[in-house]
Amino acid sequence: MSFNPPVVVLTNGVFPTHDRPLKVLRRAGTLICCDGAANKLIGRTPEPDAVVGDLDSLSEEARVAFHDRLVELPSQQSGDLEKALRWVAGKGAKEVTILGATGLREDHSLGNLLMLWTDFGLDITLLTDTGQFTVVRSARSFRSFEGQAVSLFPESSRVRITTSGLVYPLQDAPISAPHKGTSNRSLGPVFSVMVTGGAVLVYQGYPPGA
Amino acid sequence: MSFNPPVVVLTNGVFPTHDRPLKVLRRAGTLICCDGAANKLIGRTPEPDAVVGDLDSLSEEARVAFHDRLVELPSQQSGDLEKALRWVAGKGAKEVTILGATGLREDHSLGNLLMLWTDFGLDITLLTDTGQFTVVRSARSFRSFEGQAVSLFPESSRVRITTSGLVYPLQDAPISAPHKGTSNRSLGPVFSVMVTGGAVLVYQGYPPGA
Repeated sequence: MSFNPPVVVLTNGVFPTHDRPLKVLRRAGTLICCDGAANKLIGRTPEPDAVVGDLDSLSEEARVAFHDRLVELPSQQSGDLEKALRWVAGKGAKEVTILGATGLREDHSLGNLLMLWTDFGLDITLLTDTGQFTVVRSARSFRSFEGQAVSLFPESSRVRITTSGLVYPLQDAPISAPHKGTSNRSLGPVFSVMVTGGAVLVYQGYPPGA
Repeated sequence: MSFNPPVVVLTNGVFPTHDRPLKVLRRAGTLICCDGAANKLIGRTPEPDAVVGDLDSLSEEARVAFHDRLVELPSQQSGDLEKALRWVAGKGAKEVTILGATGLREDHSLGNLLMLWTDFGLDITLLTDTGQFTVVRSARSFRSFEGQAVSLFPESSRVRITTSGLVYPLQDAPISAPHKGTSNRSLGPVFSVMVTGGAVLVYQGYPPGA
């Protein structure tokens, strides 16, 4: 199969309800479903282009409907989202947007979010029903708005961060504990995050009413 | 005020709906509400014994109803749950159960869970609507059942972990990345986790139908 951007990976958490992730889903160039996430796309559009994972959560109906695009990747060493990310990276994808990664079991949500610190060789964005997580390993600027909720989650206290455009700025400084970068805010239409020594997850809340 | 165990801290995520956290809430010896979490207890039992935080999310109604037990702790350096944990630890509490810490904004949920790696001098358990997180810094055994979903989240790859009673055992070994300890399972009615070099969050899914 060929990969048409944007590449979207739908995982088996709560199916998106917010308009932002639903729009991304509708506009996917290539849609990859992690295992049981495909069950929710029976009779819907878009259809998955591939269903990947150990496929033990796939309904019989989904197994029949998508029999020509099942990619069985058995392994006890990684979960379905990690398998999907490694698989799309191996197929040459450069950017991926992940949907449906949170909700339901909090250990799955937590695992999916912490996994983003891992370097898969992909530019990764993850959309939930309340906001967007982006992984930053070097420098990145973000479209924003005054008062936007912004939280930074560094993978370790060795990561040094420089920001502009945030109410609580950082200047080549670490964040002392992984939860200590929550509850920042944007000052206006753009902010930037520069990182050395590791990865930082940047959360941006959606605009009210968006 | 005096602290009667069990001490329960209710935070401002989704109010619990599962019977397990609701039972813990009903049986609280001392109930501490983080800021706006108190809004949900107007006219309900139990009432909060204290409402702590910067109190900027408190409804006018809650401010009036609980005016005699407001503990204003202003600070930009920590969120309401962290303030509450430091406050109860300072008052001599040894064990705390946290409810309502997930759901709603995923940056808050993630921050609340990652905060548990911090040593507040408290034995901390956090209950959601799907399962229970317990912080382990030395050794602990857990009541369980065959097939129970168990996930381990170490604060770093320097933490060494020994387990018994799990399908995928660890023997004085690190977990290579913080998401790599998910999707383990219990073998029977008890399992144990022994930790050196830091903290590990242990998640246990509730029994089906419980």
